[in-house]
Amino acid sequence: MSEKVTVLVAGSWGTALAFVLAENGHRTVLWTRSEQQAAEINEQHTNHKYLPGVRLPDHLKATSDMQEALQDASAVVIVSPSAHMREIVRKAAPYISTETLVVHATKGFEKDTLMRMSQVIADELPHYNAEKICVLSGPSHAEEVSNRCPTTVVVASQDVQAAERAQDLFINSYFRVYTNPDLLGVEIGGALKNIIALGAGMSDGLGFGDNAKAALLTRGLAEITRLGIAMEANPLTFAGLSGIGDLVVTCTSKHSRNWRAGYEIARGKSAEAVLQEMGMVVEGIQTTKAAYQLSQEYGVSMPITSELHAVLFLGKSPKTAVEDLMGRGKTHEIEEIARASTIKWMK
Amino acid sequence: MSEKVTVLVAGSWGTALAFVLAENGHRTVLWTRSEQQAAEINEQHTNHKYLPGVRLPDHLKATSDMQEALQDASAVVIVSPSAHMREIVRKAAPYISTETLVVHATKGFEKDTLMRMSQVIADELPHYNAEKICVLSGPSHAEEVSNRCPTTVVVASQDVQAAERAQDLFINSYFRVYTNPDLLGVEIGGALKNIIALGAGMSDGLGFGDNAKAALLTRGLAEITRLGIAMEANPLTFAGLSGIGDLVVTCTSKHSRNWRAGYEIARGKSAEAVLQEMGMVVEGIQTTKAAYQLSQEYGVSMPITSELHAVLFLGKSPKTAVEDLMGRGKTHEIEEIARASTIKWMK
Repeated sequence: MSEKVTVLVAGSWGTALAFVLAENGHRTVLWTRSEQQAAEINEQHTNHKYLPGVRLPDHLKATSDMQEALQDASAVVIVSPSAHMREIVRKAAPYISTETLVVHATKGFEKDTLMRMSQVIADELPHYNAEKICVLSGPSHAEEVSNRCPTTVVVASQDVQAAERAQDLFINSYFRVYTNPDLLGVEIGGALKNIIALGAGMSDGLGFGDNAKAALLTRGLAEITRLGIAMEANPLTFAGLSGIGDLVVTCTSKHSRNWRAGYEIARGKSAEAVLQEMGMVVEGIQTTKAAYQLSQEYGVSMPITSELHAVLFLGKSPKTAVEDLMGRGKTHEIEEIARASTIKWMK
Repeated sequence: MSEKVTVLVAGSWGTALAFVLAENGHRTVLWTRSEQQAAEINEQHTNHKYLPGVRLPDHLKATSDMQEALQDASAVVIVSPSAHMREIVRKAAPYISTETLVVHATKGFEKDTLMRMSQVIADELPHYNAEKICVLSGPSHAEEVSNRCPTTVVVASQDVQAAERAQDLFINSYFRVYTNPDLLGVEIGGALKNIIALGAGMSDGLGFGDNAKAALLTRGLAEITRLGIAMEANPLTFAGLSGIGDLVVTCTSKHSRNWRAGYEIARGKSAEAVLQEMGMVVEGIQTTKAAYQLSQEYGVSMPITSELHAVLFLGKSPKTAVEDLMGRGKTHEIEEIARASTIKWMK
């Protein structure tokens, strides 16, 4: 049965997800702050600024009226920038019922509170059963999805039925959706990969090769997994699509803003100058601060994050940071992760 | 203390490892079948065919005499092509004592027997304690190592002390060595990554994007891990340097012969024609057959390997194979791996 699904907001990823939902036959509505953008989507069937060259399905509708957008919607997909998540959910809250399926696809932590996106949503939807919130994540350039290139993602929720409902909404022949009960792990992996993307740019900027980048990616994944374990995520989530999968796409793409920021810093620019030029869009810088704080709070060793933190905020040279990483004591590869055996997911 | 270390044979990777050992101050000897190559290494300090542009340390010596090569050596590092492993170890066996440290760095299975390299070595060294055999693996282009680009690898052995001895021999400021007790997992990951590299070439040849390649890599890792678990490897090994790390380097490098073979097949060449043109160097093709047989033997679901097997050996079209992969039933991301909880590494 066709049902009404609403996507907030009409950036690249939100529009690509709305494209998939509309192609799957759902009555799909995109909410956007901009009346002009809504008119373009309704009249021209394009969103040229965020998804250039893509013709959107005729029955994909847009509106800047939140009540109209959410009325009778059986599901809402929230794809706002992390910095606007709280404000947008607050605006949408009056029109979200206890029966609405709530899925988000936003990566990052809330500034200052360090809350994950599902926590921010739960905070702003006190009437809603927080266990049913879903996150959608994975290796997925928006342009490729809207060109129907084969793509796989994961939907995670503590409530398996909610995740399966979201899976049913999105799955089709080019968009394969897996479910996973580990919401926490999926959210952490999605956010923290931007730190490693920044490091990958730095490694390339220092003139290092593929060996160094693969090391950064693998050992980066290991420390993200350690933090995840301390926070009670399932270590195996990080070996999945939202972990290593997303990490690979982000670190090997030179279009990533985080990669570019790392590259410029390695070439001699200060982190401040890069932030000023590129603005808050470089999420990896903010996320490095958040992850560093979390590593302190949970007492987890995160050598790559610590060195990047020193480079970004304490003026350490990238070259010295790499030397210090390579020069640490001799260690075993998986001993810390093997301790995962003590946690709930392994029982 | 400086000790004598012998490397068999003088291909790209063997020469790069000998370079590291010599730089670490060990009396290092490279054995090669070719007197001419030995003379070039001793007189010109180059191995231009396998490591062009690299000046080798003066005290790195070469010989084509196996007895001379191994006399008084406290360690031997075997880096032969998998097809020649048995013959070379048989030749070296008389000069390897029970005290010699034996490390290999060869990826693949023996044809027909499907034995792993450490099993072939043990078979040919009946007097040697097989538990002490080490494997060295990880994301490491030989050229980058000999240019002193930061590189990380793992040395695995059932005997932790043996692995730590190998770690001590190799570790330096640009070559970081981790240890791991899971020899089996490291060998399986190293061999099976070539299947996924072949698939990555095929995906690129079909015109798919980064999303598809990241999916292939992640889901490929998942099925390699499943096979590993069935064979009693530690699933976490596959999330490490010899698993995902090596996979990333191989799949994103367009210099890989396996990638090239997959690309050509997707563009319309038959697997036979590609094999005839490129020869047995395309290890992924042989490994696909081996992994397919292992998946049947152990009753493990390996959808990507099965589809590649059908393309390579049963004439299935690559496009149909991808469609069949994307169209499988809806599944959970990690349920099969989570069953790892029942195996010895997780206790």
